[in-house]
Amino acid sequence: MSTAGAPAATDVGDAPLPTFADVLAAARRLHGVARRTPLLSHERLDERVGGRLLIKPEPLQHTGSFKFRGAYNALRCHAASAVVAYSSGNHAQGVARAAHLLGIPACIVMPADAPAIKRAATEAWGARVVTYDRDREVREEIGERIAAERGATLVRPYDDPHVIAGQGTVGLEIARQCLARGILPDAALFPCGGGGLVSGSALALRACLPGIAVHSVEPEGFDDTARSLRAGQRLANPPGGESLCDALLAPTPGALTFALNRRLLAGGLAVSDAEVAEAMRLAFETLKIVVEPGGAVALAAVLSGRFDGRGRTTVVVLSGGNVDPALFAAVLEGRAPPA
Amino acid sequence: MSTAGAPAATDVGDAPLPTFADVLAAARRLHGVARRTPLLSHERLDERVGGRLLIKPEPLQHTGSFKFRGAYNALRCHAASAVVAYSSGNHAQGVARAAHLLGIPACIVMPADAPAIKRAATEAWGARVVTYDRDREVREEIGERIAAERGATLVRPYDDPHVIAGQGTVGLEIARQCLARGILPDAALFPCGGGGLVSGSALALRACLPGIAVHSVEPEGFDDTARSLRAGQRLANPPGGESLCDALLAPTPGALTFALNRRLLAGGLAVSDAEVAEAMRLAFETLKIVVEPGGAVALAAVLSGRFDGRGRTTVVVLSGGNVDPALFAAVLEGRAPPA
Repeated sequence: MSTAGAPAATDVGDAPLPTFADVLAAARRLHGVARRTPLLSHERLDERVGGRLLIKPEPLQHTGSFKFRGAYNALRCHAASAVVAYSSGNHAQGVARAAHLLGIPACIVMPADAPAIKRAATEAWGARVVTYDRDREVREEIGERIAAERGATLVRPYDDPHVIAGQGTVGLEIARQCLARGILPDAALFPCGGGGLVSGSALALRACLPGIAVHSVEPEGFDDTARSLRAGQRLANPPGGESLCDALLAPTPGALTFALNRRLLAGGLAVSDAEVAEAMRLAFETLKIVVEPGGAVALAAVLSGRFDGRGRTTVVVLSGGNVDPALFAAVLEGRAPPA
Repeated sequence: MSTAGAPAATDVGDAPLPTFADVLAAARRLHGVARRTPLLSHERLDERVGGRLLIKPEPLQHTGSFKFRGAYNALRCHAASAVVAYSSGNHAQGVARAAHLLGIPACIVMPADAPAIKRAATEAWGARVVTYDRDREVREEIGERIAAERGATLVRPYDDPHVIAGQGTVGLEIARQCLARGILPDAALFPCGGGGLVSGSALALRACLPGIAVHSVEPEGFDDTARSLRAGQRLANPPGGESLCDALLAPTPGALTFALNRRLLAGGLAVSDAEVAEAMRLAFETLKIVVEPGGAVALAAVLSGRFDGRGRTTVVVLSGGNVDPALFAAVLEGRAPPA
């Protein structure tokens, strides 16, 4: 796959797997449209880890998360005239803003219990929001029905080669920023829900920095990618799990994302809610950046020692910052989060 | 004044006033040492104002505020072998980190009621902290006594030409970033305590963008610069005032800073604590940046309509993000701040 509309199928049945060339093409489409977020560091975090951390803060991206990158690239590649998406929030905002920029109508299927800040921000971009019951309805079916009824393009949150290529521009920017500063990082840690961000970024990082070890990080109870990587096949999460990380509750790895991740990743890690809350507090104190729970899992992995960063240079991606004020306040004060 | 140690006296008695050339020299010293913070924008803020806002986020600077710039420039220019400073917190951290980088000992005189996060961060840089009672002791006297006893250089928080020139690199970066993007802003708003940031930045902005109107913004009850600008002479704040903005409680404009500001500023504004809290919440929701109360006054001025940004392009500086978690949590939830 390297040009819009004419992807070369590779494996996973008929679905084309994106390549590094697709990430480069996505970066050209996103030039001047997405923000090139900085690569930050902080001595206090380095001291705590006993190694060097390089932090890529996607809360500073348009819509407050990396999701805008993949959404915009997909809408451009699909040449959509109307779009439907399902999302717990960050993909919704990314699609809504991309559709707004491109002047096409957007309909977003969102769980009724999504954070209020994510729903309000989606509607602020002029998108129509349709809610569903997370326990009783299947969002994929609702999205596909609306797409069929309206002749709209369905943009999936991760299992779309154009979305994966767009998210991969995070990894490409990291590689370029490291090479410009003469740094060869040992490892890179990415928050992982369905796996679009880590798979696309691994395409770029492994092409530009072949020695780098790329890891996914997930919440405990939702570590389907970590377990699938160990098993060599896609496994689902057990039902009934709970996590602070509303952005990372995908039930299984994506077909396309797992096909890439099993080839490109060094492994998968999982972190607890308490470790996530501690990482959010430290990002507040040191970096002055607002990170949502799901956005903080990679930082949590290295600060907690689940990933051993001692004596190494580790890139950590903060993937988003869309968190309700009441939840953020509770995390800062070490209180139980509001129901 | 254009080289270290040999400033050309201009006015205000014997004290040399810094010039635009000093800001350029400071920028050369700070190249690769201070962060070049980005210039951000957000559609939701623009919509609310009815104009275009460009946001310069110094919470992302080393030590979480612009103060590192002036401190480092002053230590380099004074060729100090030991340093003493008095500060409620942000200047303390800036001096402590600059001294650490340059390998010289630092002693910081700090009020006993300074935010815990600011004291801890200062000590983390290896500085010795000496506390004083804000109501009964005079910090300038303590600082001068310690400087005399130890042969250390006293770096004042704003009334030092090298400090002013260093803070002016914020304005220089804004001018360069605007010109690189082909933008000619109508106005720029700066948080103002003693006036170092706004005076140094006005030197650069008025040199590079002669049509720009530069304004100071202060907390209500501490609007000594605004009133002094109107009166044409330095006036003190009335005693007994209270404000959320711990970083902006200077009693009068500085001698050097006011000499610059009366020549360069278009005027001064003041905002209420409630307007500051609203600006902090909006920066959290839209920009995902942690801003301390004093750092948010310029944003508060334009969001509240105290400064009319309708139909204009306005640069707003967020000057710092060092705020205790409990206070930030209270602001997010609209509660009264903890005592």
